[in-house]
Amino acid sequence: MRKVLDRGFVELVSVMGDDLTVVRSARVSTGSGSKGLERDRKLIDYLMAHRHETPFEHVVFTFHVKCPIFVARQWFRHRIASYNEKSGRYSKMSYEFYMPERMRIPHPKDKQMSVENDGSVDDEKAKKIIAEVYEKAYEAYQELLNMGVARELARIVLPLSLYTEFYWTVNMRSLMNFLSLRADSHAQWEIRQYAIAIAEYFKECCPWSYEAFIKYAYRGDVLRI
Amino acid sequence: MRKVLDRGFVELVSVMGDDLTVVRSARVSTGSGSKGLERDRKLIDYLMAHRHETPFEHVVFTFHVKCPIFVARQWFRHRIASYNEKSGRYSKMSYEFYMPERMRIPHPKDKQMSVENDGSVDDEKAKKIIAEVYEKAYEAYQELLNMGVARELARIVLPLSLYTEFYWTVNMRSLMNFLSLRADSHAQWEIRQYAIAIAEYFKECCPWSYEAFIKYAYRGDVLRI
Amino acid sequence: MRKVLDRGFVELVSVMGDDLTVVRSARVSTGSGSKGLERDRKLIDYLMAHRHETPFEHVVFTFHVKCPIFVARQWFRHRIASYNEKSGRYSKMSYEFYMPERMRIPHPKDKQMSVENDGSVDDEKAKKIIAEVYEKAYEAYQELLNMGVARELARIVLPLSLYTEFYWTVNMRSLMNFLSLRADSHAQWEIRQYAIAIAEYFKECCPWSYEAFIKYAYRGDVLRI
Amino acid sequence: MRKVLDRGFVELVSVMGDDLTVVRSARVSTGSGSKGLERDRKLIDYLMAHRHETPFEHVVFTFHVKCPIFVARQWFRHRIASYNEKSGRYSKMSYEFYMPERMRIPHPKDKQMSVENDGSVDDEKAKKIIAEVYEKAYEAYQELLNMGVARELARIVLPLSLYTEFYWTVNMRSLMNFLSLRADSHAQWEIRQYAIAIAEYFKECCPWSYEAFIKYAYRGDVLRI
Repeated sequence: MRKVLDRGFVELVSVMGDDLTVVRSARVSTGSGSKGLERDRKLIDYLMAHRHETPFEHVVFTFHVKCPIFVARQWFRHRIASYNEKSGRYSKMSYEFYMPERMRIPHPKDKQMSVENDGSVDDEKAKKIIAEVYEKAYEAYQELLNMGVARELARIVLPLSLYTEFYWTVNMRSLMNFLSLRADSHAQWEIRQYAIAIAEYFKECCPWSYEAFIKYAYRGDVLRI
Repeated sequence: MRKVLDRGFVELVSVMGDDLTVVRSARVSTGSGSKGLERDRKLIDYLMAHRHETPFEHVVFTFHVKCPIFVARQWFRHRIASYNEKSGRYSKMSYEFYMPERMRIPHPKDKQMSVENDGSVDDEKAKKIIAEVYEKAYEAYQELLNMGVARELARIVLPLSLYTEFYWTVNMRSLMNFLSLRADSHAQWEIRQYAIAIAEYFKECCPWSYEAFIKYAYRGDVLRI
Repeated sequence: MRKVLDRGFVELVSVMGDDLTVVRSARVSTGSGSKGLERDRKLIDYLMAHRHETPFEHVVFTFHVKCPIFVARQWFRHRIASYNEKSGRYSKMSYEFYMPERMRIPHPKDKQMSVENDGSVDDEKAKKIIAEVYEKAYEAYQELLNMGVARELARIVLPLSLYTEFYWTVNMRSLMNFLSLRADSHAQWEIRQYAIAIAEYFKECCPWSYEAFIKYAYRGDVLRI
Repeated sequence: MRKVLDRGFVELVSVMGDDLTVVRSARVSTGSGSKGLERDRKLIDYLMAHRHETPFEHVVFTFHVKCPIFVARQWFRHRIASYNEKSGRYSKMSYEFYMPERMRIPHPKDKQMSVENDGSVDDEKAKKIIAEVYEKAYEAYQELLNMGVARELARIVLPLSLYTEFYWTVNMRSLMNFLSLRADSHAQWEIRQYAIAIAEYFKECCPWSYEAFIKYAYRGDVLRI
């Protein structure tokens, strides 16, 4: 398990296949299998460089993820994957909200991005304002439940920073697209931390594919050294 | 445009095709086209009853939707569709939150459902509790923005009842699946209202397909008379 | 490996997960995991009976399939899956064609179906006619190759009965849909044999899900006893 | 209708949306619509150049295609689209096979490609060999049908060059991916001709998006001037 943010995590639950799965899937087109380490590795490079992406679909990962809802909302936009999420309709939500360690401020030139706090924002004051909303909202949530309001309705007062959990099953091709978009400085800082954790698991499971991906197909910036 | 909830709506932006599109798409398999009203209509019934669902994919709808985030979260789980949503990263969010007209309470037997308030909950008191959270949260949002915190981070204090907007492009087959799941008493009451509005547009555009759907393929309950 | 037709097969290359994967994926919605054999099994029945299908997506299979091209054409219409196929552009095709053991004849009432030969067709004569086409076509193929024609073009004279091979990665939900449509008397007899072999692997890997599927969700007919 | 190959065609049956649809879908993220020709066009360039691809999904095309089966087999590998095809199970197939005007020969260096006949292959002789297979195969097909063999089985002797027809509904994003892969010198010459015809329709319907696509996102080679 890899911890992410103040209360979140990413855990690899299971994986099907590895670098050789890619090799074998690609070689079905010519009727052959593994041809030794060196040629197998070159094949992976070739496939990635020439965008023959289908052989990478036969490696599949399942992750257990805990993240704030505003992160999950960005995550679930990736449609080529399977999701099962904790439900605020069926379970009472715990008092678990994301509290940023330090604030971020608008990018001076690109209004679609943010940068680290340059000292112009008082982090402690901001965190106090945020904490007060969390307390007020959770108090109201509990009061509504106590009054007899249904869970699915009471929870609508809870903030977007509320933590949720889900299972995510995704093939390597779709995962690479996720990394290109989310392990990138244009993605919100918080989901970027999750993408980095995902990338580390990917690298451990399929080191050749990972290296070829970074070299030939990755369109983001934060995973390059 | 159809109004839904206190501040939401569903609007049909455009539609490609109609009942005859289904007929023509199905008849490509035998090399023929329309065969007159009666036989065309019977074909639609036959396709629906026997679950030949692909001809229904060639009719495509685009809707503009405004709904609370907790509704959008349920909506976006439908992966066979296209979405473009208003972004809290790029725009300042307005003071628009969903306020339930009346509370709902847990279903006495099925803990995954809710029913109408039987009088046991004081609606006015509940609404006051909810309104206080909205005010507190929006005040904090504005204060954080004023302090110089980036929009994408400041918005995490806003509640799940915040209204969002999106474009939804979906083919008729996927739309029918949406209706089976969301125009149903097991779906949360709020998204059910949206599903009913979507169903009305569907009925207007493709009356034969709609009737055949309700008769043969619809698995929900609220659209039956 | 399971042999299918005269020269084909289905082989399970790998599988990710089992019945408990379904249980754990479903229980993430309430934050719990396994609850003992009996309750776990009941949960699978409940999910299947109420069409909560997403937890079944986290079990994923990879099969290696060898089948005639006319079967592969029906197979590849299932879009929620990954495919890598042997290529007639890159490899020389072998002399491997499907020869039916016995002919099939039109269904007396349903012109979209066929039934077993009732003796009205001379099987041996039909097989001789078919074999002559295979020989003629393969001879032409070789001659064109010898003349210097590109493989991708020379192969267009080969018949639809030519065997091909592919890797198929598919999640359990999509596999169940495949079985409902292809393990059914409305499907062509040949692909039905493949579907039956796939069903046997499914049953071995996930016996609870398989039984629940047959009981509650399967829409075909040939897998029922 | 655009004629392709000796007996095929591509016809645009209907289209939903145009360049402005892309603009409006993208601007929902900031809550605005059209901002005048110049700024709208720049937005399309920006989206394409920065790979913001979802707004292009709201433009949807339906084509009627007639092509040989070996081309259709390559086409149907594109899974993000809807297909309804003429069925050899339900209809008797006509005597319509693709006859290449001129042969193609293996690329001298890249064994996965072919090039134009440099004169080393006798085109007329090759066509005669091919025509003989077509006649033999179709004769056998008819004889089998006359003997009472079911259509779905009799057709397995027909060659991969047999013409088929289908309806294809595809959104602009998926269509662009199709063009990157199929309007390219690595694609087989025959499907390339279809891709070029599709590109012409695309250009007529959405000239701004088309130009931006060719400039920023197209990965093939034959559509560049």
